[in-house]
Amino acid sequence: MLTAGIDVGGTKTLAVALDDRDVVGQVRLPTTLGPHGVVASVADAVGALAASLGQPVGAFAAVGVGVPGVVDHRDGRVAHAVNLAVREPLRLGPLLADRLDLPVSVENDVNAAALGAAHVLGVADGDLALLSIGTGLGAGIVTGGRLRRGARGAAGEIGHVPVDPQGPPCPCGQRGCLETLASGAALTAAWPVEGDASSAAAVFAAAAHGDVRAQQVCAAFGGHVAAGVRLLVLTCDVETVALGGGVSEVGLPLLDAVRAALRAQSTGSAFLSSLDLPARVALVPTDTPVGAVGAALAGMRR
Amino acid sequence: MLTAGIDVGGTKTLAVALDDRDVVGQVRLPTTLGPHGVVASVADAVGALAASLGQPVGAFAAVGVGVPGVVDHRDGRVAHAVNLAVREPLRLGPLLADRLDLPVSVENDVNAAALGAAHVLGVADGDLALLSIGTGLGAGIVTGGRLRRGARGAAGEIGHVPVDPQGPPCPCGQRGCLETLASGAALTAAWPVEGDASSAAAVFAAAAHGDVRAQQVCAAFGGHVAAGVRLLVLTCDVETVALGGGVSEVGLPLLDAVRAALRAQSTGSAFLSSLDLPARVALVPTDTPVGAVGAALAGMRR
Repeated sequence: MLTAGIDVGGTKTLAVALDDRDVVGQVRLPTTLGPHGVVASVADAVGALAASLGQPVGAFAAVGVGVPGVVDHRDGRVAHAVNLAVREPLRLGPLLADRLDLPVSVENDVNAAALGAAHVLGVADGDLALLSIGTGLGAGIVTGGRLRRGARGAAGEIGHVPVDPQGPPCPCGQRGCLETLASGAALTAAWPVEGDASSAAAVFAAAAHGDVRAQQVCAAFGGHVAAGVRLLVLTCDVETVALGGGVSEVGLPLLDAVRAALRAQSTGSAFLSSLDLPARVALVPTDTPVGAVGAALAGMRR
Repeated sequence: MLTAGIDVGGTKTLAVALDDRDVVGQVRLPTTLGPHGVVASVADAVGALAASLGQPVGAFAAVGVGVPGVVDHRDGRVAHAVNLAVREPLRLGPLLADRLDLPVSVENDVNAAALGAAHVLGVADGDLALLSIGTGLGAGIVTGGRLRRGARGAAGEIGHVPVDPQGPPCPCGQRGCLETLASGAALTAAWPVEGDASSAAAVFAAAAHGDVRAQQVCAAFGGHVAAGVRLLVLTCDVETVALGGGVSEVGLPLLDAVRAALRAQSTGSAFLSSLDLPARVALVPTDTPVGAVGAALAGMRR
């Protein structure tokens, strides 16, 4: 069965074709913003994906879409997709189903990436949280092979758990939220760079070249991400926490910093040590678009 | 089908008989500590319960037991049951099954209480966390009507999530754990009383009589328990958080303090306000032993 999975980001739209559970095709297009633009971007991506396989769009049995926003997966409605310039609730699923004449399911992009990461890392029937470290911080939670969305769709919103009463104000209205410490925005504040360059890449590179202040920033950041890992285990106790999102493209140096912090946090705590946290953290593979793969898996299940 | 549920505490053992899902009998005995004592206490309680119904022990189709400790529910083994003076791993399930000649399942007591609370509050097929505020702090999590134990049995260990880098050292080896702030032990430190009296009861009574310092202690405590509620929703997003454990016997004044803190924490945060937290907190009913009821339900499912 051929399924299309589309991951709609603020700048690019990634599409993959899954045949059963294997990736057999992949395309990437720029995203057009706004409600009409997002619908067109997804439809164009499905068309381009089909063309790349020499197939008509009707060859897909289903389409799954992942978007950054509050998603009602039951009716395919999207709200608060600010990065896509979609401010009013958008009936994305029904609009796409009409346009493509295919069954379409819509999922939050971090949830979709969690499903995709569990599949790609081979823990699809097990327990995994994807800790998505982008501009903000959030998690997608898979338990027993199924997404945990929560009673009101707030499962995994760990970026807004306060962890320091003296911490900085958070745009969410609280103070000392984990997102103010463990996010791309926090790294940008600590290590500003010019233009479109990535603070995460820059500060980890500077640390590798011996810059002491960069090393301090990276170690502290590793500690804050480690706090997120610990938080996910002490609440949901997922077996694996995968680091994803833009900041995770730093790769092994980030993983090393997080593992070092987890070891340091466990020092003197037999309880934490027994949880074996450093061994339970992984990186999302960079060679597979887990968001699009997860969107396709969600589409296949619908 | 008649099922026995036994909740073994450090001082008393509570037993209930469920006929299908209704409580039809109840007995309470003192607990004898130590491995032999615990086995005998459960066996005695099952015997007394059967006698109170005018039935033989064999009338029970199954027995469920809840104990404070680390439980492997698959083989009925109990470890670290310090409050029961059981320090070495104890094959509680198999020993009881031999002695009673009945199927026996064993569950952690907070997990059992979460199942029982979901049943008694009428959300048995839904989502509920039991926030157990005793000497320590922990949670039992039920999602979709099923216990979430976690990959390594650590789900709901929210007492050991650090929430303040400047907080006091925790016996677990970390600093500023939620348990150092939101537990019976924290109340005892803030409001010591003589003998066996309850600091929780005393400080809430003093607050009700206008003692300003007691009012401050209660408001701060409500804030820390509210942080636990928020933590459970922002990770697992259970629909209902029920307050249980010894401290919850304070009743409505505790619930009021927690709700007031949740409202205050939501002030200025549209995000938190949208989660409607004050309406999602409840008290575990004091007229039903939810731990024993939940143990029976777990026994019934096995």
